[in-house]
Amino acid sequence: MDKGRLFVVSGPSGAGKGTICQKLVEDTNIELSVSMTTRNPRSFEKDGINYYFVTKEEFQKTIAEDGLLEYAEVYGNYYGTPKEMVMQKLNEGKDVILEIDIQGAMNVKQAYPKGVFIFILPPSMAELRKRITGRGSETEDAINMRLGETLKEVSYIDKYDYCVVNGELSEAVERVRAIVKAEHSRVSESILHLIKKYEEEI
Amino acid sequence: MDKGRLFVVSGPSGAGKGTICQKLVEDTNIELSVSMTTRNPRSFEKDGINYYFVTKEEFQKTIAEDGLLEYAEVYGNYYGTPKEMVMQKLNEGKDVILEIDIQGAMNVKQAYPKGVFIFILPPSMAELRKRITGRGSETEDAINMRLGETLKEVSYIDKYDYCVVNGELSEAVERVRAIVKAEHSRVSESILHLIKKYEEEI
Repeated sequence: MDKGRLFVVSGPSGAGKGTICQKLVEDTNIELSVSMTTRNPRSFEKDGINYYFVTKEEFQKTIAEDGLLEYAEVYGNYYGTPKEMVMQKLNEGKDVILEIDIQGAMNVKQAYPKGVFIFILPPSMAELRKRITGRGSETEDAINMRLGETLKEVSYIDKYDYCVVNGELSEAVERVRAIVKAEHSRVSESILHLIKKYEEEI
Repeated sequence: MDKGRLFVVSGPSGAGKGTICQKLVEDTNIELSVSMTTRNPRSFEKDGINYYFVTKEEFQKTIAEDGLLEYAEVYGNYYGTPKEMVMQKLNEGKDVILEIDIQGAMNVKQAYPKGVFIFILPPSMAELRKRITGRGSETEDAINMRLGETLKEVSYIDKYDYCVVNGELSEAVERVRAIVKAEHSRVSESILHLIKKYEEEI
């Protein structure tokens, strides 16, 4: 059976990766991997849907049990991807989408190089500043620190397979959807099995 | 400016690559490269649209002038791709689709490795036999020879980037269209230019 693909969607904070993933999950069979974090939930976030919100102690226990595909510390908080859930879905032939920051994505790349790595870019730094400011959850100092961080993050882009500029949301979603579809036509082991079938058939 | 991409659509005779390319050209901006051949036109084929039909002498003159991106001899006839037209379109930022046999595709891969190589597969050998027979232009001996040839051709599949099984035509076209879209999101030199812009902007 054709195995599921792991799509890692990542990019700077404010590029809109969360919204893109949400849209994609709404109208395709692709399933969203829910991350584990020790950071505080934002007002609109729900435990088990946006993240599994856990204490630092619970997180460290999961690390010790080797239960994470990747984890990283960002701005003093832990973020991680529960390993078992992802692997189980892939084995069932389901596609999984993982929305994570760049540090996490690079760790997933080491643990699971067969993943498809998609970088979401804001259309410009000016637009990114506007988006982060509009969110209202950060002080100006924090925003400036984050924009500096963004430039460093963007330099990782050549470690990715694809890059989607999120100017118009619907266009960006359409592009990621095309990437998912195209990746299912990649020449891979499953296609080489098909060839064997042809040889037996003639 | 973003340069056009060259998509090389290839596969065994009867897999339906011609129909797929035609559909794609009808409803996208992608332009079909017209090949040059010394074989006789089939009843429905038009000079300059399906192929440039030329004499063996004219073909050899074009070879001598280094005017072909690739050429090959198949079943005693020459087939080739006029080089200048393809390169000009790519430089204008247009995508070009090239429908050619496997031997030709392998030569293009050497001449232009940045091309995107798509292999069209028939759903089964039984279906392929049905399609070739239905065409009515071949004797049974010729069909058997061609099916044997097909198996040899299919072994080149691992030199390709993508493989699309042409069972349902509309689904196959949809897949090739997704590949074209996805390839425009590939991390490439043009995206690395965008990053430079961000650095200047901050």
